[in-house]
Parts: sequence; C-alpha cells; structure tokens
Amino acid sequence: MDLVQLIYASTVSEQFKESDLSVILGSAKQRNNAESVTGILCFNGKNFMQCLEGGRRQVNTIYANILADERHQDAELLTYGPIDKRSYSQWEMGLVPQEALTHSLNLLYTASGQFAPYEMSGASAEQYLRAMRTAIPLL
Amino acid sequence: MDLVQLIYASTVSEQFKESDLSVILGSAKQRNNAESVTGILCFNGKNFMQCLEGGRRQVNTIYANILADERHQDAELLTYGPIDKRSYSQWEMGLVPQEALTHSLNLLYTASGQFAPYEMSGASAEQYLRAMRTAIPLL
Amino acid sequence: MDLVQLIYASTVSEQFKESDLSVILGSAKQRNNAESVTGILCFNGKNFMQCLEGGRRQVNTIYANILADERHQDAELLTYGPIDKRSYSQWEMGLVPQEALTHSLNLLYTASGQFAPYEMSGASAEQYLRAMRTAIPLL
Amino acid sequence: MDLVQLIYASTVSEQFKESDLSVILGSAKQRNNAESVTGILCFNGKNFMQCLEGGRRQVNTIYANILADERHQDAELLTYGPIDKRSYSQWEMGLVPQEALTHSLNLLYTASGQFAPYEMSGASAEQYLRAMRTAIPLL
Amino acid sequence: MDLVQLIYASTVSEQFKESDLSVILGSAKQRNNAESVTGILCFNGKNFMQCLEGGRRQVNTIYANILADERHQDAELLTYGPIDKRSYSQWEMGLVPQEALTHSLNLLYTASGQFAPYEMSGASAEQYLRAMRTAIPLL
Amino acid sequence: MDLVQLIYASTVSEQFKESDLSVILGSAKQRNNAESVTGILCFNGKNFMQCLEGGRRQVNTIYANILADERHQDAELLTYGPIDKRSYSQWEMGLVPQEALTHSLNLLYTASGQFAPYEMSGASAEQYLRAMRTAIPLL
Amino acid sequence: MDLVQLIYASTVSEQFKESDLSVILGSAKQRNNAESVTGILCFNGKNFMQCLEGGRRQVNTIYANILADERHQDAELLTYGPIDKRSYSQWEMGLVPQEALTHSLNLLYTASGQFAPYEMSGASAEQYLRAMRTAIPLL
Amino acid sequence: MDLVQLIYASTVSEQFKESDLSVILGSAKQRNNAESVTGILCFNGKNFMQCLEGGRRQVNTIYANILADERHQDAELLTYGPIDKRSYSQWEMGLVPQEALTHSLNLLYTASGQFAPYEMSGASAEQYLRAMRTAIPLL
Amino acid sequence: MDLVQLIYASTVSEQFKESDLSVILGSAKQRNNAESVTGILCFNGKNFMQCLEGGRRQVNTIYANILADERHQDAELLTYGPIDKRSYSQWEMGLVPQEALTHSLNLLYTASGQFAPYEMSGASAEQYLRAMRTAIPLL
Amino acid sequence: MDLVQLIYASTVSEQFKESDLSVILGSAKQRNNAESVTGILCFNGKNFMQCLEGGRRQVNTIYANILADERHQDAELLTYGPIDKRSYSQWEMGLVPQEALTHSLNLLYTASGQFAPYEMSGASAEQYLRAMRTAIPLL
Repeated sequence: MDLVQLIYASTVSEQFKESDLSVILGSAKQRNNAESVTGILCFNGKNFMQCLEGGRRQVNTIYANILADERHQDAELLTYGPIDKRSYSQWEMGLVPQEALTHSLNLLYTASGQFAPYEMSGASAEQYLRAMRTAIPLL
Repeated sequence: MDLVQLIYASTVSEQFKESDLSVILGSAKQRNNAESVTGILCFNGKNFMQCLEGGRRQVNTIYANILADERHQDAELLTYGPIDKRSYSQWEMGLVPQEALTHSLNLLYTASGQFAPYEMSGASAEQYLRAMRTAIPLL
Repeated sequence: MDLVQLIYASTVSEQFKESDLSVILGSAKQRNNAESVTGILCFNGKNFMQCLEGGRRQVNTIYANILADERHQDAELLTYGPIDKRSYSQWEMGLVPQEALTHSLNLLYTASGQFAPYEMSGASAEQYLRAMRTAIPLL
Repeated sequence: MDLVQLIYASTVSEQFKESDLSVILGSAKQRNNAESVTGILCFNGKNFMQCLEGGRRQVNTIYANILADERHQDAELLTYGPIDKRSYSQWEMGLVPQEALTHSLNLLYTASGQFAPYEMSGASAEQYLRAMRTAIPLL
Repeated sequence: MDLVQLIYASTVSEQFKESDLSVILGSAKQRNNAESVTGILCFNGKNFMQCLEGGRRQVNTIYANILADERHQDAELLTYGPIDKRSYSQWEMGLVPQEALTHSLNLLYTASGQFAPYEMSGASAEQYLRAMRTAIPLL
Repeated sequence: MDLVQLIYASTVSEQFKESDLSVILGSAKQRNNAESVTGILCFNGKNFMQCLEGGRRQVNTIYANILADERHQDAELLTYGPIDKRSYSQWEMGLVPQEALTHSLNLLYTASGQFAPYEMSGASAEQYLRAMRTAIPLL
Repeated sequence: MDLVQLIYASTVSEQFKESDLSVILGSAKQRNNAESVTGILCFNGKNFMQCLEGGRRQVNTIYANILADERHQDAELLTYGPIDKRSYSQWEMGLVPQEALTHSLNLLYTASGQFAPYEMSGASAEQYLRAMRTAIPLL
Repeated sequence: MDLVQLIYASTVSEQFKESDLSVILGSAKQRNNAESVTGILCFNGKNFMQCLEGGRRQVNTIYANILADERHQDAELLTYGPIDKRSYSQWEMGLVPQEALTHSLNLLYTASGQFAPYEMSGASAEQYLRAMRTAIPLL
Repeated sequence: MDLVQLIYASTVSEQFKESDLSVILGSAKQRNNAESVTGILCFNGKNFMQCLEGGRRQVNTIYANILADERHQDAELLTYGPIDKRSYSQWEMGLVPQEALTHSLNLLYTASGQFAPYEMSGASAEQYLRAMRTAIPLL
Repeated sequence: MDLVQLIYASTVSEQFKESDLSVILGSAKQRNNAESVTGILCFNGKNFMQCLEGGRRQVNTIYANILADERHQDAELLTYGPIDKRSYSQWEMGLVPQEALTHSLNLLYTASGQFAPYEMSGASAEQYLRAMRTAIPLL
C-alpha cells in the first residue's frame, strides 16, 4: 500500500459561507484521522491549497470527497506521486493561519505576489507548503 | 497552460449496465474534443484504466466529472504530472478492445496476470498503456 | 562571440495587414543575412512563433528591432540560451507554411490543439519547431 | 503562469543624463510593483546589468519597455529561463551602490576586472548578482 | 564473502505465546553471535520486522531457519542486497522496545499509521529501522 | 501489490533422486500458475539457480515453500527487488536444458567455468539468466 | 605519458606569403612524424585552426615552436586536455581544402558564418573539426 | 568468488630467448586452463601487455607466478578491478600476432605510435586490447 | 607519472617468525622512503592487509618485492587504481596496532567479524583502512 | 570574452640566474596588471608551476610571451579550460614562498615527493595550487 502525496488548488463556490471553514476543517480532521491521512491547508478566504498524504487508496477517496463538496470548485491537481516518508505527519490537517500567507512569502513562489495556487508549478507548491510548516501553531 | 498527463483506475458500480460503455465513450469523446483532451481507455467489463492528457485545467475538470459519474467508483490516481508532448494525440479517447487485454500482456506488468489496474505502479501503468497503442483500430 | 538561440511568441497588432507578412519576411531575411542570423517562423494569421539563432549581440539586436515593430505586440520569450551548433542554418528565416500548422501537430504540444505559442513551455516550443523543419519547402 | 528570471546588459545612450538614474529607478519600482516583478540593478555610470524576475508575461512586457527606453541602448540578454523561486523578492528593484562594484569583485567574474556585463557568461552573471545582494542597503 | 542486508516482515502464528519473544530473541542472539550476523527487530505483539546483516551465506541460513519457525508465518522480504558496511553491528539482535513503535513514527512511513511492515516499500523500511536505532537501550 | 524479482541458488540434498526434477518442475508450474508467478530454472544435476517473478507476497510464499522442500538445501538469495515489468512472463517455470549450461557460457560469468551459482554476484546472475532465455524450447 | 589534444586559432602575420602554406605543412608533417603527433589544419588564407594530438610533452614542444613561428600570430588555445584515443591518427597533419570551409558549414558553428576560429567555443571547435574529417582527400 | 580483470605491462629480461615465447604461452595456457583463467597477450619481441580475467584468487596466483618468472621484468599493473562478465572467455591465452600491432593502431592509443604498454593509461589499455580481439586467429 | 593506490591481503608463511614483523616494517619503511611510497599496514599475527600509494612504477616494483618475500604468501589484490591525492602520506608505512583491529570494527566491514582481509570487497577495504588512520600513534 | 584558467610547468634554462626570479615576478605583475590576468607561481629554484587566469585572449598572449622567455624552457600545459569565476583574483601573480613547497605537501600530490610539476595530472595540479593559496603572505 504505497504512500502518496497530492497537492491541489481550488476556489470557494458562491454558496461558501465564512463559517464553513471551521466545519470543513473539523470534518477533514475526523475523516483524515479515520483514514490516517495527514496534511496541511492554506486558505485566504477565496482559494484553497491543500496537501494530502497517506495511502494511495485513502488519499484518492478523500480527494473524491473533496471534489464532491459543493462549497468549493475548480479543483486542480498541482502535483501527485509516491513518497517514502510523509512531510506533514504531525497534522491531521494543519491549517496555516491566513496572516501567514504574506505578500513577501507569496512573492517568492508566484508571479502575482498573491496567494495564487493555480499559478504555481508543482515544484513551487511543494516548496511553498514546506515553508509554511513553521507557521502552524502547535497545540 | 501546462500540458499534463493523468492515469487512473476505477471500478464499475452496481448501476453500471453493459450498454453504458458506448454511452460513456461517446460523451467522453465529445467532452474531450471540446476541451482538446486526448487519451486512451482500457475496460474489461469490471475495471477501467484511463489516461487523460491535455491542459492542466481541462484534464482536472474532466477528472472531476469522471469522479462524479455514478456508473463507476473507487477512482484512484496511478500517476499525474507535466509532459512536453502528448502520447495519445490521435484519439479523443481511444478504446483498447477488450480482447487486447490478454493474459500474457497483463502478466508482464501485474502480479495477478489479470487486468488489474489498482495493482499497478505508475511506471508499470505508463508502460502498459504505451504497449496498448498498437491495439486500437484506426478509423 | 557566443552562439545563442532565442524563441519568442507574439501577436499581430491592429495595424497589421495581410500583405505585411511577406514584407516582414523579406526584411527579416535581408537583416538576418547581414547579421548571419538564421531561424524559422510560424504564423497563423494571428500569432507568430519565431526562432532566431546566431551571435549573442546580433540575435539581441534583431530581437530589439522586432520588439519595436508596431505590426505585432505582446512579444514573450519562450526560451533563450547558448548553443554549440545551430538548428536552422539553412534558412535566413524559414517560413513554415500556414497549412503545416495542423490541428494534429498542434495537439501534440499544446493544451488547446490550436497554434498557441504563448501556451507552450520552452521545451515544447523547441520540439515543435524542430518538427516543423521538414515542412519548409526547399528553394 | 510561469515564474522566469531574465538578466541583461545595456549601455547608456548619448542622451542619458546623470540625474536619469533615480528617475529610471523610481519608475522601474513603480512599474515592477504594479506587475509584481522584482529584481536588482547594477550601474557604473555607463553600463547596466539588471535582473528581472516574475511572471513570464510581466517580465517580457517590462523588458520590451526597457528596450524602448532611449536613455540606454545595446541591450543584450545574458540569461533567461524558468525558476521555482525568486532570488530578489525583497526588492522592487534593488540598486547596488556603485561603490560596491569594486575591482576585486569584478575581477572574480570578468576578464577585464571592470564592471563589464557584456563580457559575462550567463553563469558568471548569475553568480555576480547573487554576490551583490548583501551590498544593497536595507531600508 | 559478500556482506548483505535483508529486511523482512512476518506475523505471529496461532501457536505463538507471549513468552516466546524472549525465547526467540535469546536463540537469535546465540545463533547470530555464532554466525557473526547482526541486526535489529521490531515486534508489536502481532507483526515482526527484522533486519539481518552479515555474510551472504550466513544471512541466508538464518533466514531459512526463520522461515521454518512455526511461531510466525507469512514472511515477506522487503529489501535485500549487498552492502559495504553494516548498519547494526552493535547488536547481535537489537530489540526495539514496543513502546518505541509510536503512532507518530509509524505514520511517517506507513499508510495506516500502524506498525504495518507489510505495507512498507523497501526504502521506507530501511529508513524506519534507521530511525529506530536510537530507541534501543544500551546494555 | 508490487512486482518483484528474486534469484536464488541451491543444492540437491542427499535424498534427491534424478526423477525428482520433473516432479519439482511439474508442481512448480502448477503452483506458479495458481499464483501467477513466472520464472526460469537452471539445474545441472547438483545445483539449482532459479528466478521467480510476480507479486511480492506470492513470490515470498513460493520461496518459503522452496526453502521447506527437503530435496534441496543451502538456498542463498543472489538478488531481490522491485521491477516494473517481468522478464520471463512466457514461462510458468522455464527449464533451461542442461546441455545449454555450456562451459563457454559459464566461463563468461563465473570464476570456475562451471555452473556455479553460489559464486555469482547478483548482477552476473541476472545477465546469465537473460542469456539463457533463448535456450528454452518453445512448446 | 598522457595523450592530449590541443586546438588553437591563429592569424597570418604581415610577412606571411601564400607559398608559405605548403612549406609550413611540409615541415609540420616532418616534425609531427618525428614526434608521433597527428592532427588536422584548416586555413582560409588568413586564419588557422589546428588540432594537435599526441604525447603531452611532444604536443607542447610543437605548440611552442608554432608560437615562435613569425609567419602567424595571435595564437589562442580553444581547448586542451587528456584523451584516451586520438581522433586524427590518419594524418601527420591533414590539410582541410580551403573550399571545404563553406559558408553553410561555418554558419553551423559560428556567429558570423565566416571561417572565424577565434569566435568558437572549445566545444564548437571540436565538432567543427570532426565534421571536416571527411573533406580531407585520402592519398 | 568475484570475477576480476587485470592488465599489466612488462619487458623481456636479458635471459629471454626468442624461443621462450611459445614455451611461455604453452605453460600459460595449461596453467590458465587449470585455473579457469582466460585472457589475451600482446608481445612485440620486447614488451608484453597481458590481460588476465577469472576468479580473484586465481588471477592473483597467476600474476604472482608471472612476477616470479625471470624471463621478463618490470611488470606494472595498468588496471585491475571486479567485472560482471569476461571479455576474453574464448581464449585460455589468446596471442595477438605481432604483425597486428601496427603503427596505425598503436598511434590511436599511445603517444609514441609504438607498441608501448607502459605509456598507456588503464582506459587506453582496455580499449587497445578490445580492438585486438578480432586479430586473433580462430583455431 | 601517475599516482596509484594498491591494497592487498596476504598470509604469513610457515617460516614467518614473530620477530619478522619489525624487520619487515623496518625494511618497508626504508624502501618506501627511497621510492617515496607511503601506506598503511594491518597485521593480526596471521594476515596482512596493506595499502601502498605512490608512483605507478614504484608501487609496482615494491609489490613485486612483496610477492617475492617468502615470509608471507597468497597475496591477493583487493583494489588498485589511479588517485589524484594520497590518503596516507604521513606514513612511510604506518603500522596499525594489533589491538586496534577490534571485533567491533572488523564486524562493520566483514562477514566473520574477524580481521579477514580476503573476505573484503575493494570498497570495504578502502573504508576499513581509512577508519584505521586514527589508530596509528604519531611519533 | 570567456574567462579561462591555464596551468603549466617549466624548467629554468642554463642562462637563468637566481636574481632573475624577482625580475620575472616584477614584470609578470606589471604585465598581468595591464591585462587583468591573475594567478599564482611556484618555483623551487629549478621548476616553475604557474597558473594564469583571465580573458582567453589575454591569457594566451601572456602564455606566448612566457614561451618566448629564454630564462626557462620545456613549458608543458597541465590543464586549460573555461571558468565561471577566478580562483586567484587577489594576486597579480602570487609567489608561493619556496619553503612552503614542503616534502609533505609535495608527497600528497606527486609520486616523487619532490616539487615535480611535470609529474602531475591536471587534476592534481589544480588541487596542489589551491592548497598553496594560504601560504602566500598578504601584503
């Protein structure tokens, strides 16, 4: 049962309400916990960039659920492939605080200087998320 | 707009009827034609293994539609990533004839000798599909 | 004096007239001949994709002239770098016939299946132009 | 939208006045800020060597403007290509103080020991500019 | 006489009794000492993951004995090959304390987050055992 | 379910009778057929060198059975690892005719010029068996 | 005694007379024959590009003599280094006929399209001379 | 028992008589046959260059005998190391006819154009001997 | 005159007396000093493992003398080849104290855990000797 | 204008007087300063080993002058090729004090343990000179 890592970008849909984020995060943590999937999530109020890592079947099951969730749309895979070791095993789903998505960090990896996950190559997305790990508060 | 290639495996659901294949293939060709996505499909009456290649956004849109299609389930990405050149540009969606999925060819790339896409590594899946290209009848 | 290769994409401006192509090509050949620059040009009535190769100074001088030409706009470098040997030395500026820019060839290297040079990565652009060499009529 | 890096050399024209530098720098910063382009500029009173990094379209638009600016001439690309991460994201356009262009630093990367950007290979230019980063005063 | 390293996974059989572990370990140490085989053993009450290193003949003789031992079953090689230098030469057979097989460490290298050696690729198994070295108490 | 390849050497035991070979081969073919394992076997009346390829679990189950078979002894793994594609998929267990194990072929890969599988490195064993493929009669 | 290869460019001096070429070539052949040095010479009436290969000491002795010859000047090494095998062992000093130095061949490797050895990188010079081998008449 | 290859150079001593060559060769063949060592020998009346390949112990035993043979002296190893497959398995000790050691072949790999094995690097010696294989008459 | 490194194993002969070691070492130092050969020697009362480094001719001359020395036998080359820089230039012939040849160090690089140089691959022997450097007392 | 590095060895001629060294060094510094060439010089009273680095034309001009200087002879190139960055830019021509050419340093890189530049491979010469940099007194 191969370990894989998947990073995707998506956009909130019209029916997304601000309060949905904590609901999404809560159920993501529950679901990930059940499936031993780990990861990290960036959200700026409009776009998501999320990394999922775990068993190939589990990560795909969760990605299918994510695609079916009507609160966001236009999901686009940035990178996907086998790994020997996880990068985000501390978090069922670590939420990067929105204030950590600073202009100066975005500028390092994107053309616009915005939090703009669709713009990113797979390689830039991986580096961006790794740089975000230190921004997640420890519980 | 990066070119990408995506290969996935899936399984027919209970509500799949034999006549659905040509319907699925027909609408896939239409949809792919509209989005300039090309690819190749293997099906043995139970499992699908499909390759999609085209623009990153388009391939992802189509993959989301595929995941939403209730005629199959348990979709699992085998490999995904950027390419410089397509491998299946001749086909809107080339159907590999079921009789081409022979035991001797399956044995080359799988443990069971069956058409068993979930068993395959990404590298084996790529090689398997390339070997299948000559089996598709030219129109 | 290093040999370099440069590939760019651009778009006709409003003031471009159909008859301008042969004028552009004629003066390009004259200018390239004077500077020992060689290359290849694709044009579909709307977009240009052109490769220039020669001395670093000469290629840059000509590229500056091209940028100043008001008959096209939005020039964008696809790739640039040193080479040991030219690829298009037979042509002062070889024009790929528009009918050679077929859907099936475009589909191999672009997401849209159109002649869409802005979409192309540097690597795809290099491969596309190499594939075009055989389409240029010998004089 | 790919991130790219572009380094070029150029020479002041006859109509360049000493006071132009701060004008050029001011408008470069404004323009770069608007386009989220970042970079670094060396100038010794006669030659410029400048690095631009950002989105492929934006960097090319700005380079076209630079080529059209009559205060300098003979622009020549030293290196150009895709990057995963910027190197000069702290500066809209960081000006290297002229006194930092020392003989001993120039000697490391050029044949003449002068500030002589046209002499440099792409690889030397990249290393030269990286070495210059520490010379730019923080605001 | 080539040095080799072998890592395998196995499962206790029905006839395995809790007290067997120390018996197994004791005789393993004796046997390994006699054959100058060294290694490391993880056991969670149900599954074993063991690394053996030493001469090619000796490691194979011991592995054959292990396969013949009815207290466990379903042995599966994870990785095997020549080495220039041993990794576990301090231990005739180092037992990793069961409490060191934590969820957080398992999660780093497996899909399930359990101690699940059959799930592991050879590369993950090697890294997992290396990470375990510090958990073995020195005598 | 990963595909693996395993090559081992062994020696007949005292209780081996000449007529055992066809019995062994017959049951190997049956067992391999049931487990979709394929391979090739060399035997000179005294030593065996055998390659097994198939699913990781199946190959290991069969190897455990082989180790338990008292008609041979001193089994020693020469090489083992994951593969993307089988090399011997035509044969449930292809028997290399003893007369094909010629001195001149043995000399290419061994120090003694005998059929001496224990002497071989993993790399030599793989090349030796590949060279033997053409010697197996087609049925 | 290491084998080396040396390629240099030079220019005729004012005192060079057309009849000197055959004199130079004749004495080069004699000297090379005595030192077992081999090579190839291109000359267009103004510039020389010559390759010498042989023992490190011998090639250096001959190069020193060449530098002392007042019939040419401005010698510049294009490339120099150890080789395992000579490339021009058929010729004591093979003269490439001047008519073989065609514009189309020069254009492949130089910025000017002229026979311009000083312009060439070491890599281009090596490729240019290799391409010239077929142009030398066999005796 | 690793396969190795050893190439050395040596020189006839004063007590060497012309008739010794066939004696040396005869006993070398006998000895090599007994030890399953194979190889190739070049001799020009003054210098030997010989390749021995076989088991590590056997090749070293024979090399020790060679060093003790007073008919030649100044033996010098050119290259030595493990191999997966022999290069000269057809010959107990293939003698390259002296007339095959031509000036033109020597010139390809030596500075002097002579048969001069002491001059050769290990890499040149290996290539030289491989080129000599076709010169040995088949019996 | 190429620098080479040679490592060999050997065994004391029947006529070896304990007092011979310091004699051997003394004459080795004298001889090495005269030939500018350096190295390191391990001896456990029964086997030698020695590294010689220096000019190709000198190292070979000394190795020939070593082979002719009747106080030891069965010399076997472990590794031999060109080097850019010596590893043991501090010692004319550094003697590793016998008590430094510990079981735990031997176990790292050999199958038997003994000081067993014949068992070692060339790569293991190089690493073993490097690890021994710190054990030699400085004078 | 490519940066290159050149290292050569030479020998004093009969007419060399001890006082010539400072004359040579003084004019070398002047000449190098004028041509922006930098480097390092070792001299033991008999042999020179010198590194020159700078523009390709300038380094070659100076090397030609050196060859014409009758105070030394037998100049032999050890290595030559393009560089991105100089290694000796602090010195117009840094003189390594003769007492820094110690036996122990020479032994590291040469067969004789002498200062013997002709013996050195290009790779050893580069490492030797780099090791010498710290021996040059700062002014």
